[in-house]
Amino acid sequence: MKLIGMLDSPYVRRTAITFDLLGISFEHHAISVFSTFEQFQQINPVVKAPSLICDEGTVLMDSSLIIEYAEAVSGRSLKSTQLHPLQKELQITGLALAACEKTAQYVYEKSLRPTEKQFQPWLDRVQGQLIAAMTQLEHLIAGLHDPVEQIERNQSLLTSAVTWQFIYSMLPDILIAADYPALTTLSTNAEQLPVFKKYPPVGPGVQTQA
Amino acid sequence: MKLIGMLDSPYVRRTAITFDLLGISFEHHAISVFSTFEQFQQINPVVKAPSLICDEGTVLMDSSLIIEYAEAVSGRSLKSTQLHPLQKELQITGLALAACEKTAQYVYEKSLRPTEKQFQPWLDRVQGQLIAAMTQLEHLIAGLHDPVEQIERNQSLLTSAVTWQFIYSMLPDILIAADYPALTTLSTNAEQLPVFKKYPPVGPGVQTQA
Repeated sequence: MKLIGMLDSPYVRRTAITFDLLGISFEHHAISVFSTFEQFQQINPVVKAPSLICDEGTVLMDSSLIIEYAEAVSGRSLKSTQLHPLQKELQITGLALAACEKTAQYVYEKSLRPTEKQFQPWLDRVQGQLIAAMTQLEHLIAGLHDPVEQIERNQSLLTSAVTWQFIYSMLPDILIAADYPALTTLSTNAEQLPVFKKYPPVGPGVQTQA
Repeated sequence: MKLIGMLDSPYVRRTAITFDLLGISFEHHAISVFSTFEQFQQINPVVKAPSLICDEGTVLMDSSLIIEYAEAVSGRSLKSTQLHPLQKELQITGLALAACEKTAQYVYEKSLRPTEKQFQPWLDRVQGQLIAAMTQLEHLIAGLHDPVEQIERNQSLLTSAVTWQFIYSMLPDILIAADYPALTTLSTNAEQLPVFKKYPPVGPGVQTQA
């Protein structure tokens, strides 16, 4: 299988780390939906990262759906099978994914269009949603017992760690690390793990190529 | 449990229909992330639809994650347990969700900002991605044996039906029904089903309230 997309996307990175932790063999192809749009388009005309090319050629999209497929392939999962812990994990993952989405919307507004086409009420709306998501995420992570120990066995924690690294690197002026001590600790420890180092968050970003 | 969000969102609608088909008891609260932003914010500060308020108050976001929770609650699923059909279902669902996302981006650009803040290269990019997703989705649905018979047992088909209704109602000038006969047939039949009629796609849309 081939996983297509740049690791500076938190969606691509969480997928790559999950595949590795589930013991799934795959090739990673670092192709950008921005700087190499046409190359990406040849693989997946919808140009969405991550894209997974399965062994017989089927292309899957959407990190949550690709992870669902990876769970089926490996017969394993990084989610709880019991309802109550699963509920909390899905709550955390939902907040992390919402924060990633709002960050992407913010960065797209600032990077992909000229200044005169940027719309401040949209930036304000998105930033408010982002802070709301990160505030709740911090609160939930802070309330967990020893989350650092569980990163490699828990989808919601590895996604949270990837999310913090992404957002803090993209928007250091908007997020103040001191306000998010639990996420900072989680992320700092995660980035020391071999599986996080193996898939470093590098890429060309979203600067328009016009 | 309470499901929060307007049914003119395909994400909310596919979640409501799935809950019903899985036999999960829930209340639906039609609150908009646009026209009733502040009311929504009191329930979920991130203001994302659908939001699910679980019985003890935990709030979940993201239709795919909420559906995953619903599967755990009910002990049932509208997805295949076997790998090969699951792969195809996830491919179809991924295309449908990508098409919904691109439609939302297009509509947001046109409806939520003044004309002088709209950026044509973004609209062009998004429209191209939308057409690519819908073209592939049509091809896959057309290749299935009797998909209409399976709508209520198959997450990827109910999501495709909801997607077509949404996109065709939002962007009738961009999508020509004659180009999508399999999706049109699937949607037309789906909308006759009691469970689709029970959750009609009505709402205030995304017109800015400024």
